[in-house]
Amino acid sequence: MPESIEKRSYIPEPALRRLPWYLAYVKLLKKKGESQVSSTQIAKKINVLASQIAKDLSYVDIHGKTRVGYDIDHLIEVLESFLGFRSMHRAVLFGVGSLGAALLSDSGLEQFGLKIIAGFDVEASIVNTKISGIPVYHSDDFVELNKSLKANIGILTVPPDFAQQVADRIIEGGVRGIWNFTPFRILVPDNIVLQNTSLYAHLAVMFNRLKDK
Amino acid sequence: MPESIEKRSYIPEPALRRLPWYLAYVKLLKKKGESQVSSTQIAKKINVLASQIAKDLSYVDIHGKTRVGYDIDHLIEVLESFLGFRSMHRAVLFGVGSLGAALLSDSGLEQFGLKIIAGFDVEASIVNTKISGIPVYHSDDFVELNKSLKANIGILTVPPDFAQQVADRIIEGGVRGIWNFTPFRILVPDNIVLQNTSLYAHLAVMFNRLKDK
Repeated sequence: MPESIEKRSYIPEPALRRLPWYLAYVKLLKKKGESQVSSTQIAKKINVLASQIAKDLSYVDIHGKTRVGYDIDHLIEVLESFLGFRSMHRAVLFGVGSLGAALLSDSGLEQFGLKIIAGFDVEASIVNTKISGIPVYHSDDFVELNKSLKANIGILTVPPDFAQQVADRIIEGGVRGIWNFTPFRILVPDNIVLQNTSLYAHLAVMFNRLKDK
Repeated sequence: MPESIEKRSYIPEPALRRLPWYLAYVKLLKKKGESQVSSTQIAKKINVLASQIAKDLSYVDIHGKTRVGYDIDHLIEVLESFLGFRSMHRAVLFGVGSLGAALLSDSGLEQFGLKIIAGFDVEASIVNTKISGIPVYHSDDFVELNKSLKANIGILTVPPDFAQQVADRIIEGGVRGIWNFTPFRILVPDNIVLQNTSLYAHLAVMFNRLKDK
């Protein structure tokens, strides 16, 4: 009897973050015409221990055969489903500035299950325009508009000074996940999923390490 | 006598990643007209222990006064310098696709010390055009061109299948830091600084956590 989804244990974040690496590599193998892959083979290419890879994959509902390894087509399908890349998540973006407009124009996100359906801003020159075909509305109208938009994820690219108040508004509108690109540490209730991606913090790490080399 | 830069100890990555949070918050306080801030005050707002903040700031060449705290103007200046946001780093971007073109258009990076001076691609329709005023050249010409461009940082936004070979080329051209936006785990020599920012891995974490809420 297959293991039920409900019984599967909670996957720790570091493991979850490694799964897309394995996915990227096995997709490359598929393009090269391969049909089977072992964790040892993945390990060699991406600098993660084979035992770690096998453990990470044990959180996903897939089983390898001894010596042969995993079926590549099946592994891709299972990983993409598990990671949420095969369903479409409706998102809204707040702060159509430089980075915000750039993300609105990044159609690549849609291939990974994220569809940005609207942008929100307070600048009169941007409100009621379209960026890459996506409508931009006034932030004040979000709570009302989201009754029909039904977005579940909010992308935060406002200036850091407004990050907390805009996050509060996004949550008020019924969004359950916030993807925070600002360097500001926003506080959210326990039932809200918060993912921080501060490009500037990553830059700071790189600049600092370059000084020491 | 002030502590010399050479003597200062190596700052761990988690501490380095927190510094931009403190910077964002004290910049907000400055806008509000404040002139002094204590680590206790920062702690309350961003959910990090005051003792941790004081420890993180001890890596930077700044000293607070008991009870009064840090001078905000000075703290901002010292943090921005330490994080490398006050000097301009020359970068080139490889892979002018959806995300790549978006980053070329993000003028915000320049405010944090990163200037993208050229894009590189292999698509005939993109090579020798300009995106947001930034020239795009053929990837094959990079090693030669970088003798005059003198870029120190390479941004990697190519399809994952080409990530490793393009990274090798970037390093051959004299770049010392690679900012990898692909989900592919590239391998680089020890003297190269590698910073991974996989937006899709962050998406995967958010999707997965949303399922469980």
